[in-house]
Amino acid sequence: MSTPSGGAQRLATEGGEYTVVRATRDDVRDIVGLLRDDEIGAGREGVDLAPYLAAFDEVDADPQQLLAIVRDEGGAAAGTLQLTFVPGLSRGGAKRLIVEGVRVHSRTRGSGLGAALMEWAHGQGRSRGVTLVQLTSDKRRGDAHRFYERLGYEATHEGFKLEL
Amino acid sequence: MSTPSGGAQRLATEGGEYTVVRATRDDVRDIVGLLRDDEIGAGREGVDLAPYLAAFDEVDADPQQLLAIVRDEGGAAAGTLQLTFVPGLSRGGAKRLIVEGVRVHSRTRGSGLGAALMEWAHGQGRSRGVTLVQLTSDKRRGDAHRFYERLGYEATHEGFKLEL
Repeated sequence: MSTPSGGAQRLATEGGEYTVVRATRDDVRDIVGLLRDDEIGAGREGVDLAPYLAAFDEVDADPQQLLAIVRDEGGAAAGTLQLTFVPGLSRGGAKRLIVEGVRVHSRTRGSGLGAALMEWAHGQGRSRGVTLVQLTSDKRRGDAHRFYERLGYEATHEGFKLEL
Repeated sequence: MSTPSGGAQRLATEGGEYTVVRATRDDVRDIVGLLRDDEIGAGREGVDLAPYLAAFDEVDADPQQLLAIVRDEGGAAAGTLQLTFVPGLSRGGAKRLIVEGVRVHSRTRGSGLGAALMEWAHGQGRSRGVTLVQLTSDKRRGDAHRFYERLGYEATHEGFKLEL
């Protein structure tokens, strides 16, 4: 993994070379497209871009958030994830990295891009002193669970949600 | 629930009256005590307070974190939790509240304090525009899972962890 200009980093995979970069406002439309390119996510996402742009501005202004987008050599959106760095007292004052909204475009799945992207995320965590990474994954996503387990993750916890 | 001076809020339960307040540095020792007063947490927490104080300073400086401590009428520590407010694009730009490090002192369990504290947390979320609350709970904590389900939470997700 090397660092070209502009903070972008290269992700080399068997399926080709990709670039991962901190997202800008211009990437919001593509990120929403990736969120919608998903069996479970499709029904949850809207068509009006305005709420996503407003949410992006909040994410971008928060130094503990890092929303990333991956592009292929032709510039097409290939993946996204959001990193949240969380200081806390438990586990000896451990800093956590929470990973949310992981998506890899259906056409690139199986290319190793997902694993390369997660390794990039772990590197971002290490560089900020993170000792524990956590994420939740919908129980219907069996393939995703095997993917995370191959990366060393353990499903030690139940993930509870409540809509307010 | 009313608001006395200093931003503290009262939590009235069948077992008595409690006060919940944003934690200060002086509360760190008691919060660590609560984290240690737990079958699973006991082995994970140290005796040196220095790393906890350093972690507290990071939590306290981050406007998206709210570490709270609950005290009984005599001033004894009775509970704690940490709230993290996370903006994001998925689910139509939903703002999330992540709840971590929920502990209620063993002597007060079953008094309704846990439920009152979670309702307080939900109120904090609503006042900041949160539409989705999420938390993970160790799979060994069957009682905690029933507690969260009674509050309306659904265990729709697997909770994965990875130590870096």
